[in-house]
Amino acid sequence: MNCATPTDITFSFRGFSQRAGVTSDHCDGFGIAFFEDKACRLFVDNQSAVESPIADLIRNYPIKSRNVIAHIRKATQGKINLENSHPFLRELWGRHWIFAHNGDLHDFKPELSGRFEPVGNTDSELAFCYLLDQFVEAFGYTEPSLEEIFVLLQRIAPQIAEHGTFNFCLSNGKALFSYATTKLHWLVREYPFQPAHLIDLDVEVDFSQVTTPEDRVAVITTEPLTHNEAWTAYQAGEMILFQHGKPILHALTRVERLIREAENPALKRVTKADQY
Amino acid sequence: MNCATPTDITFSFRGFSQRAGVTSDHCDGFGIAFFEDKACRLFVDNQSAVESPIADLIRNYPIKSRNVIAHIRKATQGKINLENSHPFLRELWGRHWIFAHNGDLHDFKPELSGRFEPVGNTDSELAFCYLLDQFVEAFGYTEPSLEEIFVLLQRIAPQIAEHGTFNFCLSNGKALFSYATTKLHWLVREYPFQPAHLIDLDVEVDFSQVTTPEDRVAVITTEPLTHNEAWTAYQAGEMILFQHGKPILHALTRVERLIREAENPALKRVTKADQY
Repeated sequence: MNCATPTDITFSFRGFSQRAGVTSDHCDGFGIAFFEDKACRLFVDNQSAVESPIADLIRNYPIKSRNVIAHIRKATQGKINLENSHPFLRELWGRHWIFAHNGDLHDFKPELSGRFEPVGNTDSELAFCYLLDQFVEAFGYTEPSLEEIFVLLQRIAPQIAEHGTFNFCLSNGKALFSYATTKLHWLVREYPFQPAHLIDLDVEVDFSQVTTPEDRVAVITTEPLTHNEAWTAYQAGEMILFQHGKPILHALTRVERLIREAENPALKRVTKADQY
Repeated sequence: MNCATPTDITFSFRGFSQRAGVTSDHCDGFGIAFFEDKACRLFVDNQSAVESPIADLIRNYPIKSRNVIAHIRKATQGKINLENSHPFLRELWGRHWIFAHNGDLHDFKPELSGRFEPVGNTDSELAFCYLLDQFVEAFGYTEPSLEEIFVLLQRIAPQIAEHGTFNFCLSNGKALFSYATTKLHWLVREYPFQPAHLIDLDVEVDFSQVTTPEDRVAVITTEPLTHNEAWTAYQAGEMILFQHGKPILHALTRVERLIREAENPALKRVTKADQY
């Protein structure tokens, strides 16, 4: 979620967390990170988002944030333990960075400088450390602009995507970078606001009753969260940068693997996917 | 808290959190970090540990951990906002590191490489980044032994302490480093366990009823938490490394500033102190 004004995520999280055992089987832990200006609060648990007392706190404690990344895990690589729970957190350029990945990477063994090292043993945390390592390689310890990071990500993300499914969200609290190789959807809620009805739970909120005209919220999710809103699917290789609750940069990257698979469907690997 | 076996901190935290407004005035936010093997969960809030729903969760959700660092803040430098809440978290050598500081540093402006940068604007987070920077300076990206880190800390900590009060706890989940220039106490609870009665709340626990002979817990705190246990005060400049619930290395470092102050009390600065 990326917002123009600090917004709480209790409505979306209520529906989303149902997918951790009720409407889907992403039960192997959950995590959610909230930026509050430069600060970042990361909550993780190895219980499912349906059972966890921490998820219960999140559903009931309306933390107001401009950038939130949440993840419910279906373990494909790495054990079901806490150090493998997304999202992952690192500091760079005096800012916290948060990363969550949906998908599976194979034979992905990049060389790391040591500047960022995975704590757990997932392909996802490794990809995150590699991304940040490449940021430092490109820009050193001087913070670049969001646009410069976006351009660099357009080069690195497709290289990582050569190794499998690489849908991700990445935020430094200023903006939210997103990328899809297989499945991601987005929408913007803004004035004039409408009612929204959750898919995973029979709950409706009329946003026109709880918002001001200044509010604007972009929601990015693997599968749409509501019935009656216009979600846009990402194309394969699409990258979008969100700021102030709306897309500010789009790009379509060339993912060689996807092109090869389209030409020869027999090459396609069956992958199970984590879900935002 | 440093423990031989995963232990919950609900008893100690119940008493400790009273100091955030009831028995003391450390109301400007709180934080607590739990290591669970290599994973680390950090909870912070800018509400006091008496009022915060997150503190309430901690008092009632018995997270079992071998290394816990908790902090209740009385703001002396830096605003009362979330990015200034202790403890602070960074990753180095594929391990999370957690740091909390009690005290006040003046004219402390070390040069940083950029490898670790403060997110907030406290002297404490700056000292933490400086410590980790010095670790990399000394050992590069190859993880040294706990003893090697202890020896390095004996050189760096007194240099930082030249700038004021520098009581701290630092952990990477394997062990807990502690250092005092003015005020810190420790004790070890082990077999045969005894009842303990909190100072800040009329609550007693008979640890012999809730422990096994394998349990052993070291508790390090600014001010003793219980009436009827034998707390040992740190000497000025004392550094202790705790592992498996007991001290494994002691050292007494020479803090030039304290020696000068002892020789000439007029030099002594009045400092207000944060509290673990």
